[in-house]
Amino acid sequence: MKISPNHPRFRSLGTRERLVRGFQNGIVAPQGLIAHGRGEAFDYMLGETTPKSSRLATKAAVALLLRARNPVISINGNTAALVPRDIVRLARSVPAGLEVNLFHRSLARERRIASLLKRNGAELVHGVDERARVRIRGVASPRRDVDAQGIGDADVVLIPLEDGDRAEALTNAGKAVIAIDLNPMSRTSRAAAVTIVDNIIRAIPELLQITLTMKPLSMSRLGAIASKFDNETNLARAMKDMIHYMQGWAET
Amino acid sequence: MKISPNHPRFRSLGTRERLVRGFQNGIVAPQGLIAHGRGEAFDYMLGETTPKSSRLATKAAVALLLRARNPVISINGNTAALVPRDIVRLARSVPAGLEVNLFHRSLARERRIASLLKRNGAELVHGVDERARVRIRGVASPRRDVDAQGIGDADVVLIPLEDGDRAEALTNAGKAVIAIDLNPMSRTSRAAAVTIVDNIIRAIPELLQITLTMKPLSMSRLGAIASKFDNETNLARAMKDMIHYMQGWAET
Repeated sequence: MKISPNHPRFRSLGTRERLVRGFQNGIVAPQGLIAHGRGEAFDYMLGETTPKSSRLATKAAVALLLRARNPVISINGNTAALVPRDIVRLARSVPAGLEVNLFHRSLARERRIASLLKRNGAELVHGVDERARVRIRGVASPRRDVDAQGIGDADVVLIPLEDGDRAEALTNAGKAVIAIDLNPMSRTSRAAAVTIVDNIIRAIPELLQITLTMKPLSMSRLGAIASKFDNETNLARAMKDMIHYMQGWAET
Repeated sequence: MKISPNHPRFRSLGTRERLVRGFQNGIVAPQGLIAHGRGEAFDYMLGETTPKSSRLATKAAVALLLRARNPVISINGNTAALVPRDIVRLARSVPAGLEVNLFHRSLARERRIASLLKRNGAELVHGVDERARVRIRGVASPRRDVDAQGIGDADVVLIPLEDGDRAEALTNAGKAVIAIDLNPMSRTSRAAAVTIVDNIIRAIPELLQITLTMKPLSMSRLGAIASKFDNETNLARAMKDMIHYMQGWAET
């Protein structure tokens, strides 16, 4: 079925079709489709645009990534299906490691995702097969096993589309967690040091662009940007944007 | 993977697993999984409970169903997967017809859904195969073709989990539409005569129970209940519940 470019939700429907193709290609899990739908609803309340609160968080996130000793980007099926090229570009420009880390694990899916990332320019992809695994305490799912050279050794972890348990566990393990999550009330959003409340199809290109802009900055300048940021205040701001949107509807 | 009954979202995660099984059995379309996720996000903002506004709408809906000449319940994959037994019970107690009507049509899926409903006690299921179809004007999807004896002839149509185009078209065709939709801002919610803003796993059992309570009422009493109800006011009430929930979070 063709969608007209005049449809009010043209881009959102296109993204949905891309995800369904990712599912048909064995990249996305069925549960990933449900999770995407949750995100769609929250994105709807952002008017499907990047709010100011998200721009602020993106700058703080880039400051953390550029200052890190070993930054790693965690990749799940939805991220790979929706932004394979830009996530690899982001990893190369920081530079940061890439690790496949799935909630619904299967070796076949890990391999397909790693190969998709490699076709998009990635050199090394952590997290495939059982070699050199370490365990993150306090996570019940198979997602607790991480690569010793990847997330296991990372000081800063970027986790687009994460589950709450693991976001909390990574924070408890002393890592600075950067989350991308459309739900500002989720446990992931609240556990992270920096939460970008935005759709990854907008957030990853934005992270990439701001990384290129901020790369020339000194370590002390980056440190100042990161320490000025307060995640709790920023999440309240994102919620106010959504509340404002719903109030507009409630009054019509 | 076992989910602990102490998990804050135990029931929601159980529902999600039921839907994934429905998908694996060919009852649910991949797009149905995404649509379910959208609903989950709005349900989250209801605190995953039935709000007062929904109780009011349920009573008005039952009044319409009990007064109708030919009430029909439209069934899609998600409804069949989540509440097969209660939807059949509801149809028998009104009594109302059942029609399978899919956005992503396939004869195989229609047959599987009809046979699931029959295993749950349904006698006649409309909408399977091409016999006696009539077309609803103003709908672009295959969902426009309806059964001449089912939705085609109905004066009242209950549509759990509907798309906006068809909800508007059914209203334009002069039918009284009862919608069950967790998004109070959707076109479906706004096009319907009565919108129950609630999760179908709670709304259908509630409809069934209230039908049994209201069956003894006279036609004029039912008419009074139906005409007292104002959908726009009630949707604003549901939105205020959600806004109130988010404000609670924004202030913590």
